[in-house]
Amino acid sequence: MTTFAPSRPVKRTTYIPSMELVPGVIAGSVPGIARMITRAEAGYPEASAALAEIYKHTGKAHIVGITGVPGAGKSTLVSSLIRALASDGYKVGVIAVDPSSPFSGGAILGDRVRMSDAAESCRAFVRSMATRGHLGGLARSTLQAVDILDAAGYSPIIIETVGVGQDEVEVVTAAHTIVVLSAPGLGDDIQAIKAGILEIADIHAVSKSDKPEAPATVSALKGMMALGTYRTGSNWSPPVLPVSSVSGERIGELKDAIGRHWVHLRESGELATRQRSICRTRILGTARHLFQQKFDEKAGGLEKYIQAVVNRDIDPLVAAHMLLGWDHEGRIT
Amino acid sequence: MTTFAPSRPVKRTTYIPSMELVPGVIAGSVPGIARMITRAEAGYPEASAALAEIYKHTGKAHIVGITGVPGAGKSTLVSSLIRALASDGYKVGVIAVDPSSPFSGGAILGDRVRMSDAAESCRAFVRSMATRGHLGGLARSTLQAVDILDAAGYSPIIIETVGVGQDEVEVVTAAHTIVVLSAPGLGDDIQAIKAGILEIADIHAVSKSDKPEAPATVSALKGMMALGTYRTGSNWSPPVLPVSSVSGERIGELKDAIGRHWVHLRESGELATRQRSICRTRILGTARHLFQQKFDEKAGGLEKYIQAVVNRDIDPLVAAHMLLGWDHEGRIT
Repeated sequence: MTTFAPSRPVKRTTYIPSMELVPGVIAGSVPGIARMITRAEAGYPEASAALAEIYKHTGKAHIVGITGVPGAGKSTLVSSLIRALASDGYKVGVIAVDPSSPFSGGAILGDRVRMSDAAESCRAFVRSMATRGHLGGLARSTLQAVDILDAAGYSPIIIETVGVGQDEVEVVTAAHTIVVLSAPGLGDDIQAIKAGILEIADIHAVSKSDKPEAPATVSALKGMMALGTYRTGSNWSPPVLPVSSVSGERIGELKDAIGRHWVHLRESGELATRQRSICRTRILGTARHLFQQKFDEKAGGLEKYIQAVVNRDIDPLVAAHMLLGWDHEGRIT
Repeated sequence: MTTFAPSRPVKRTTYIPSMELVPGVIAGSVPGIARMITRAEAGYPEASAALAEIYKHTGKAHIVGITGVPGAGKSTLVSSLIRALASDGYKVGVIAVDPSSPFSGGAILGDRVRMSDAAESCRAFVRSMATRGHLGGLARSTLQAVDILDAAGYSPIIIETVGVGQDEVEVVTAAHTIVVLSAPGLGDDIQAIKAGILEIADIHAVSKSDKPEAPATVSALKGMMALGTYRTGSNWSPPVLPVSSVSGERIGELKDAIGRHWVHLRESGELATRQRSICRTRILGTARHLFQQKFDEKAGGLEKYIQAVVNRDIDPLVAAHMLLGWDHEGRIT
């Protein structure tokens, strides 16, 4: 006869209401910030009011989006930037959204470890967002995480994202300063052009500047700039900066360019325009996601209308209205 | 001093309620059918009840979708098919949805004139749907037009559509028998594969069979068939048929294959499965379109929330809920 060891008592932790976490977040408590981001990421409805409260304390940070095709070297570049910015005394926040992230699937590999090291020694806050299972939408929860860091006094806040996919592009266009990283070599430029991210760059960085192909990529980007695809009405001219994350070479120039763009936005008055455009994108993106969720929920009830349409009892339009819970005039019944 | 001629009295036509047109449509009145299709196309809410009534009289026709990339020769093929089917005694209906249609912009050119000639001499009903300005959605109004012809006793009903674009693919998947027309020559096969229409073909036709490249296209399609991309669970094997619309050569074989597929669907019991899948697609497509319209309407009210979000009075999530007219739990307020 087998006997079983009595189960160990489960350690019960009390759920702290999100609203009670808010003062700690605003005071910069790292465990409070981490917990709040987890709740934003999970899309807890309970956290909505706390996040709305946190949002009121935002608007101070300089938000920098760093994007580029997978393999361009974004994580390495971000690690170098953290160090450079921290040594200037900045309290740097990083939210990384990247399906190719070495964190994916629980594995922690080279680049991210390097980034964590940088964070550790600099008191920066670095967080990788999962790219799946965002009930609230990837863009929404990522930007809520940025809000949390903003309210907690971090600035600049770097959003690292791969520049492919609607959600990822939505995320990066919520930044004040957009850095597009291109890697020298065949096809990368084309990939970035196809993703539609080259023309939104405020600063172009070319990674692996020690590679022989780098000058060609720099020339190609400068040539593209000359064609004038940058936002109209701005007198900012996006610089093209070769960098080497490995040797840390010319990271300082990139850091300075990021700072100069922030000054430019504030002094030219373009900041107000961009703030409006960021808010517009965030509202619309959130609304579209909520709406899509609602549609998917409703579409789940489809099966029960099919037989009636097959039998010619009702037509597809009436079935569609019934499925959506609308009356014939499109009012909600 | 200039004098003006008195304006000519405007001929006033009374608007006949759509419901009153229904008996004429079912009796096969050509002017009634034409008028009803115009109302479906315009998306008149007034016509919805009449279309729902008409739908009850559908389900008798064999619906044949003919699709292929622009320039494959669809219109010419359809003209030949009308003649071949009409000479067998069928009352043929055709609904053409093709942005490259020679009817577009009011111009009537070669192919369509040929199709009209065929229609004229055969008492077939041919109608081109505009591809723009469909308030009710292109797929919805096209399939309502097919319903009208079905209720009026036309069979087979041919839907001619270019196989590119979500709406067009939705339309063609509402057919019982799908004919994909490929033109011999470089790149066409690839275009069709990219559009995702090759694997839904019940019958493959290769146009311009007198061209030297035609046998290669036939072999490529047969090779693809051997890879087994066709619907699982069916014991129908899609034939690959070279045709020449110009000489009318082998149109008879295509006509016979279409007839054999209809017999197959009924005798194998696959017709019931396909009816269900057609109804599912139609309900979902209509619902998605209605939902999207509603979103676009609501999104028009976006501007008044932006400043509040810029000012940090509300956060983007609250603004999104307000924009949609939902409360915080996603209920409609």
